[in-house]
Parts: sequence; C-alpha cells; structure tokens
Amino acid sequence: MSLPLDDRGLLLGDGLFETLLVIDGAPVWWAEHMARLRRGCVALSLPEPAEDDALAAARQAMASGTAPPRAALRLTWTAGSGGRGLDRPAILKPRLLASFAPASRPTTPLRVATVSVRRNAGSPASRHKTLAYLDNVLARREAHAAGADEAVMLNTDGDVACAAAANIFWVEDGELFTPALDCGVLDGLARAAVMTRVAALGVALHEVRAGPAALARAEAVFLTNSLMGLRPAATLDERRLNRPPLLDALAEDLP
Amino acid sequence: MSLPLDDRGLLLGDGLFETLLVIDGAPVWWAEHMARLRRGCVALSLPEPAEDDALAAARQAMASGTAPPRAALRLTWTAGSGGRGLDRPAILKPRLLASFAPASRPTTPLRVATVSVRRNAGSPASRHKTLAYLDNVLARREAHAAGADEAVMLNTDGDVACAAAANIFWVEDGELFTPALDCGVLDGLARAAVMTRVAALGVALHEVRAGPAALARAEAVFLTNSLMGLRPAATLDERRLNRPPLLDALAEDLP
Repeated sequence: MSLPLDDRGLLLGDGLFETLLVIDGAPVWWAEHMARLRRGCVALSLPEPAEDDALAAARQAMASGTAPPRAALRLTWTAGSGGRGLDRPAILKPRLLASFAPASRPTTPLRVATVSVRRNAGSPASRHKTLAYLDNVLARREAHAAGADEAVMLNTDGDVACAAAANIFWVEDGELFTPALDCGVLDGLARAAVMTRVAALGVALHEVRAGPAALARAEAVFLTNSLMGLRPAATLDERRLNRPPLLDALAEDLP
Repeated sequence: MSLPLDDRGLLLGDGLFETLLVIDGAPVWWAEHMARLRRGCVALSLPEPAEDDALAAARQAMASGTAPPRAALRLTWTAGSGGRGLDRPAILKPRLLASFAPASRPTTPLRVATVSVRRNAGSPASRHKTLAYLDNVLARREAHAAGADEAVMLNTDGDVACAAAANIFWVEDGELFTPALDCGVLDGLARAAVMTRVAALGVALHEVRAGPAALARAEAVFLTNSLMGLRPAATLDERRLNRPPLLDALAEDLP
C-alpha cells in the first residue's frame, strides 16, 4: 500500500493521527481514541472518519502482522489530495491509513531533559495529534543529544507543557501537578485515566500553569501516554528523582 | 508514483520543501532555492540532497506536464522511512519528490487579515519551509473565513511575522519595514531580492520586531514570495491601503 504524492498530509502536515495500545490483539480505549480523533477533526475543520471504516482499517492492519502481547496501532487521517498550495479543495476526501507494530514496554530508567524547542501556545494544533509533529521530533532529538531519553517541552509562554510524546506530571509535598490543557497540551487518555484514579484515591491533583522552577522543586516526575501507560522519570536534567509508592500504584492501574 | 506509508514526511512532517517559479520551462533562482534547502537540512539535521538528483527530479517533473508561461515546481525532501515513533532511524535515507503545476499570477486586489494562529518563535522549524505546515493552512483558512485572501500571522511573542505563504513588508513615512528573520520568519528569496533592490534605490529599509500597531499605521503593505513576486495588499483588516509607485517599480524588477 502507498500514498498519492499530492496528499496534503504529506505535503503540509494537514491531518491527524492516533496511536493505540493493543494488548493480545485488542485495542485499548478504542472509543476514547476515536472520540479524540473526532475532536481533532472539528478543530482542523476536517470531515470525521466513519467508525466502521476505522474499525475495518484497524482490523486489516492488525491481521497483517504477528500480534505480540503489546503492540501499537496507528491510525492516520490525512486531509486527502488536492487544493492549490495551502488552500484545501472545495470538497475534502480524507484518507485513512492504519499501521501495526510491536510496542514492548520500556524497562530502563527514564532520563528526561528540558529542551529549547517550544510548544506553540498560539496554535490550536498544539492541543491535537496532528501530522505536523516536527517540533516534537526536534525536541526528542535535542533530548537525546543531552544524553536523555525524552524531552520536557515548555510552551511559548514559558510554562511547562509536556514531553515530546507524553503528558507530564510531578509531585511536590505529596500533591500531584500537571499542566492545564490550555498550556498547549494534548488531552492524553492516560493523563485522563491518572486523573480519575488519583481522585478516587483522594490525592490532591492540580492542573496548573507553572514554569520550569516548579519542576526543579519536584520530588518526583512521571510521564504518561497510551502506549507506555505511566513511566516514572529517574532523572530530570541529570538531577535524581524519587519514586514514591503512589507512582507504582497508579502505574499498575493503567493498561 | 506514490509514497511508502512509513515515510516520516507523511507521519510526522519530518522534512522540507521548496516551491520554485518556472518561467517558460526555466526554474528561477535554482541555486538560491537549493542553498536554502541545504540550510534547512542543517537546521533539521537531515542529509542534503545531491544537486544532480534534484536537477534530474525537477527535469522529470517538468517534462511530465505541459509548460505554461508561469508554473510552480515543488521539491519535497522527506526524512525517509523508518524509526520508531518520533525517533529517526540510525541511518536516514531521505526521499526526493518533485511536482509541477501551472501558477498564473493573481491579478485581483489582495485582501489580507490578521489571524489568531501564531507563528512559533520558539521553534527552529518556523524559519524553514518544513512539511509541518499545518499552522499556515489554518492561518489561511482563518483569513478566508474573515473574507480575506491571505493571513497576516503574528508570532508567539506578539510581533508581526509573515503571511501564511509569503513575507510581509509595509511602508510608513516613505520608509520600508519588514520583520527580522528572528521573528520566526522564512528567509524568503523574493524578500531578499526586494531588500537588494531597495538598497540600490537608496530607500531606507528596516528589519524590525514590531507589533500589529505598526501595521495599523502603515500606508501600504505588500507580500512577497517566489511564485507571485511582489503583490501589494489592497486592504488590511478591511482598511484600504495606498499603492505608492515604489511598489510597482519593485514588482517590475522581480521575476
């Protein structure tokens, strides 16, 4: 399978994607991923994919590969072909693509580093998983160059936003903090699951606008996304972090 | 011709492009476009395309279509296939694509509107023509929704940056102004040509960081890019603008 060269996803990053965890052949949070993809379509003024089409494409992709215990299913929804330059054609015919690959859970200590590439707080795209993900690629590269595994991105207002491919939480004085969505942050499904679980446990959690000084004070930091669930950071900018029992309890509750 | 579905240009916007004006079958500013593409490769840590390969792809694309007097040649340089998620593979094998289409010069009065989507002043990508161009697509859409033809984008610091697909200049008290490149602005080839020409004419030109108030005071505004050369704006946010003779003189000097 291949893609026509006039696809706007390729030419302009005009489209969206979702990456789903698949456990033993079953997609996790399917309905939630589809709902988020639809929210992204509204934000980008794209037609929404039909649920049946998405399911059929997902099944076909999953059938094509061997199914390890944990795998990743990526759904890509491009704006389709056509239009002149930036302008979309009068009638959009988006394209749905699906791919499937193993996604074993990383077990090495996670080192995170604050990078210079900023999340754009002045674009609606920064709250969605769009095909224009180059800033995240560059952020991850910068983290690697600093000897870390993952990046912490500030937004263009100077507030802590997220990792290159995850949401971020931190712990201070036994309370939890995470950037508010209007910091230019993806509405992560694992983020939402952690927030629900934390509320059930009666632990305080604050959605905040906070600068990097808040992270520098944190006793613990962890990242969340659909594929890895919750992953504690061992170091932040080479400073060793704690791993309070709460983090392991929360991690166990995620898929 | 088509593209493998694991191409990073498609999946993540990981790549660059150039759009060249072709007059009577001859690309304009070929060396300058190639030099800018190479600068983009350095900024994004991508291997550079071989000049001969680019020329061969361009010739093939131009031979495939009929050649109107004015046409556009687009060169797309993707990071190629592979890697897991955001991470690039150890050895990058970028892909070169070329397409060719008519590009007649627009002759209708140009209406521009200031939009809410901001240019990311906190990303190196905002100074290059990358495949992650969704913010520009959204900016153009917002301009259309406001009844205009093209957008004026501020950057995330609140300074005037550029149009969705052009550089911007304005005139106040007979002097010319344009945003400095570190406002998160593409190093436009038509922009450079205008600056050279203006210097030869002895007209003052200032590269500035300026807020939208400077535009609101401007007596004239014009946009530049490789395809259209110089195009005066008839209105900015529905305010009528002047068209001093200098603009037509400069326009005549561009291809």
